[in-house]
Amino acid sequence: MEIKLVKNILDANDKLAEENKSILTQKGITTINIIGSPGSGKTTLLLKTIEKLKGEINIQVIEGDIASSIDAETISREGIDVVQINTEGECHLDANMIKQALKNMELKPGILFVENVGNLVCPAEFEIGEDFKVAVLSVPEGHDKPYKYPMIFSKAKAVVLTKADLLPYIDFDMDAFMSGIASLNPECKVFVLSAKTGEGISDWINWLRDVRG
Amino acid sequence: MEIKLVKNILDANDKLAEENKSILTQKGITTINIIGSPGSGKTTLLLKTIEKLKGEINIQVIEGDIASSIDAETISREGIDVVQINTEGECHLDANMIKQALKNMELKPGILFVENVGNLVCPAEFEIGEDFKVAVLSVPEGHDKPYKYPMIFSKAKAVVLTKADLLPYIDFDMDAFMSGIASLNPECKVFVLSAKTGEGISDWINWLRDVRG
Repeated sequence: MEIKLVKNILDANDKLAEENKSILTQKGITTINIIGSPGSGKTTLLLKTIEKLKGEINIQVIEGDIASSIDAETISREGIDVVQINTEGECHLDANMIKQALKNMELKPGILFVENVGNLVCPAEFEIGEDFKVAVLSVPEGHDKPYKYPMIFSKAKAVVLTKADLLPYIDFDMDAFMSGIASLNPECKVFVLSAKTGEGISDWINWLRDVRG
Repeated sequence: MEIKLVKNILDANDKLAEENKSILTQKGITTINIIGSPGSGKTTLLLKTIEKLKGEINIQVIEGDIASSIDAETISREGIDVVQINTEGECHLDANMIKQALKNMELKPGILFVENVGNLVCPAEFEIGEDFKVAVLSVPEGHDKPYKYPMIFSKAKAVVLTKADLLPYIDFDMDAFMSGIASLNPECKVFVLSAKTGEGISDWINWLRDVRG
């Protein structure tokens, strides 16, 4: 009974997500759903990405948070169009929230980054109209996460491993991490980078240029 | 409609949680629900706690994970009774899962640590029969988390800030962190510690002795 109900909610959500995607595609927008735990470095990755692509590709941002507008204010200071969604307790963004946000945006061709609520689990279940998902995991979270949270690592088109500058201070088994992702999702691209030192950023940026096409 | 449904689920859950708590209290067990993101250091904190309290207080553990039994195997190697719950996709433990787990345990007076699914959001909503919740946050996750994820920081009896050995390498505003918690939850105890260096561990252990009474 509960399972059936959840399935109905997901079906209704998927329908709205398709509508969002259709609108976004018509406007020439590539939409990327960024999913990771609190503090994994999603906003910092966005800031670095904006710095590198500003003037070349038009970037818009939707910030999802349970509370506060800290991240939207940070992004806004970069001169980027940003809409904050406060979910007021909900642990993920859904397609209806995005639908409402899109009504408040002047959609221009380029990339729309949607920073989901900080949560490695629930956002993976909900399509929002994105072209693809990117999972963000930080080095301190540990190399075993693909084994423990398989859904997001199975569904992501790319995984960004952030805070690579902390690798010398943390036991992080890179081979185990890479094998974990490869076994779940052989096509998945993995970027190891540090927004602090700049290491690995250019591969990520070049990949965004490629997928933007 | 959806809200009403969620409320019914939570009411049913709370009833089971009270039953669990009654059973556990009768057995002389203090039950602690450990909640934090993936990679925040929950299992490592448990291992350190077990090392310090073994022989003094009987410790039992329930490990909640979406998939895998990595954490239960780690704990089990310390000679501790541990039951693994695999939620198979669910983003939190609920009271019924704990009820089933308790049936498979020989309950002895002492402390039962329940390591919830790695998620700073959803587990905060579900009572499982615990005496209290402890929130675990790691330094790399950032000082702004009480502002962004207020529920767990409002409900926890204590917050453990882990990986304090990484403070020199990370911009972490300790005053902002402490103020964030104090404004939500003035009675909350905060422990800053590093399982790696041992810094701060003894305050945490002494507090567990106190609450165990």
